[in-house]
Amino acid sequence: MMFNKVTLIGLGLIGSSLGHAIKRGKLAGSVIGFDADGDVRARAGGLGFTDAIAATVEAAVADADLVILCTPVGAYKSVARAIAPHLKAGAILSDVGSVKGAVVRDVGPLVPAGVHFIPAHPIAGTEFSGPEAGFASLFDGRWTILTPLPGADEKAVSALKKFWEGCGAQVETMEVAHHDLVLAMTSHVPHLIAYNIVGTAHDLEAVTEGEVIKFSAGGFRDFTRIAASDPVMWRDVFLNNREAVLEVLGRFNEDLSRLQRWVRDGNGSALFDLFTQTRAIRRGIVDTGQDSAAPNFGRDKKDQ
Amino acid sequence: MMFNKVTLIGLGLIGSSLGHAIKRGKLAGSVIGFDADGDVRARAGGLGFTDAIAATVEAAVADADLVILCTPVGAYKSVARAIAPHLKAGAILSDVGSVKGAVVRDVGPLVPAGVHFIPAHPIAGTEFSGPEAGFASLFDGRWTILTPLPGADEKAVSALKKFWEGCGAQVETMEVAHHDLVLAMTSHVPHLIAYNIVGTAHDLEAVTEGEVIKFSAGGFRDFTRIAASDPVMWRDVFLNNREAVLEVLGRFNEDLSRLQRWVRDGNGSALFDLFTQTRAIRRGIVDTGQDSAAPNFGRDKKDQ
Repeated sequence: MMFNKVTLIGLGLIGSSLGHAIKRGKLAGSVIGFDADGDVRARAGGLGFTDAIAATVEAAVADADLVILCTPVGAYKSVARAIAPHLKAGAILSDVGSVKGAVVRDVGPLVPAGVHFIPAHPIAGTEFSGPEAGFASLFDGRWTILTPLPGADEKAVSALKKFWEGCGAQVETMEVAHHDLVLAMTSHVPHLIAYNIVGTAHDLEAVTEGEVIKFSAGGFRDFTRIAASDPVMWRDVFLNNREAVLEVLGRFNEDLSRLQRWVRDGNGSALFDLFTQTRAIRRGIVDTGQDSAAPNFGRDKKDQ
Repeated sequence: MMFNKVTLIGLGLIGSSLGHAIKRGKLAGSVIGFDADGDVRARAGGLGFTDAIAATVEAAVADADLVILCTPVGAYKSVARAIAPHLKAGAILSDVGSVKGAVVRDVGPLVPAGVHFIPAHPIAGTEFSGPEAGFASLFDGRWTILTPLPGADEKAVSALKKFWEGCGAQVETMEVAHHDLVLAMTSHVPHLIAYNIVGTAHDLEAVTEGEVIKFSAGGFRDFTRIAASDPVMWRDVFLNNREAVLEVLGRFNEDLSRLQRWVRDGNGSALFDLFTQTRAIRRGIVDTGQDSAAPNFGRDKKDQ
């Protein structure tokens, strides 16, 4: 057992999956859950991934050795303010947010002396939300990035690393700013693009929404999957990783202008070269086990 | 049996899948295959989806009741020129190309009197290529769009419709120009965007390719799937559907500029509204069976 008492604040997809993974790995003596939404608290209690649901966030963290913020990032500051006076000396305070610079900015100043604040981010998810969406294997083989601040306690960092490995994840350590740039490229801008193209399809008068839905198997449906992710979580990501998102988006736009010109000019060899080059990255992703090589865009043949 | 002899020209993913589907549905007395690539001809012969592989494209179409072009669209004109003198009177000449205006422009003038030219497009595919990639159920439940020209023979159109239904598809009829716009929205621009963002990730100096691959599970990997599609086929799509692609891309760019401004301004409520609206289209796609509702982006939990 790694921790006596682990508290999960926010019981959506990630919080509930963490609870299941902790139970599977027997990583804690007890798991305490809390969610600001009373309905979520009531539903989560029966799902078996906690030992108890606390009635208040203050009570939830009392005596906890590890407290993990699993709410949307926009709620961190008020949660941190509420729990700070109740955190045990020596406890680890961590999170699962998709951005790290804003978390350090918002939460860092509120952390009491003697509490180890170590931001973290598991790169895993589905397009489903809520406590019922969680499952124990969500983190298996995926990466969790820790972004400890300069001078962080090595023992605490090492304990958190072992905890995530116990949840099935591989762990990497990274600087806060670099994390935010890497994720802007691998996750945030892809989501922004997906939301955008689904919005374009929705607004296009010459093509009906029925046609878009009917003929989506040609590629579009894969974007709608990503664009079905939780709106609150994603709003908070874009409000809190503005600089890195705008930087990557700027590069994307430059590249798209060039590609647009190739289409306009009928530059077949430039198109062919780009379309060939992009295959190599795909191969890397499949070779390193970050995606399945199964055909049909990962769908069963019958669902295809 | 619907046709005595069906000829498939081009034995990649779609040609080979058609062969398997014809065999499964017993839709033809015999299936003759041809591919310009001798190596593909040699491999295809042993895969069971044809009765014979012809040595020349002229021999392949001799006496065929239905000839289907399954090569990349850029090869249609030369193939049509070669086979035109050898097509049987009363035969149906069709295709599976992702664009239709250019096909009518390139192939139409070469079709001899007495041959029924009916362009078609099955909206189905995977990111894999080649004769080994084909399977009989590729078209099951997917849509095939027919774009018969004004004055097309109704019996021939009806026979082709029944043929595709025999292959498992649902069939819709559409005007050529409308097809090209609908597909620009649901397939061509999504592919262009996917190729583009994978290219951006490849070129970004501040984030290594290893990092992109490692942390791709946050959304990026779904784009790499699409961007792994056949480069020749997709080059030909963009060379041959320029106007509609540029039109949809123009709208996409306008929308992206607006979204970029929302991110820059921190306009959380506008972001939230867009991210909520896009969920409805996703629901439509799942409800109409054009995608699976299984979580984890369609992947098995263990592959997730």
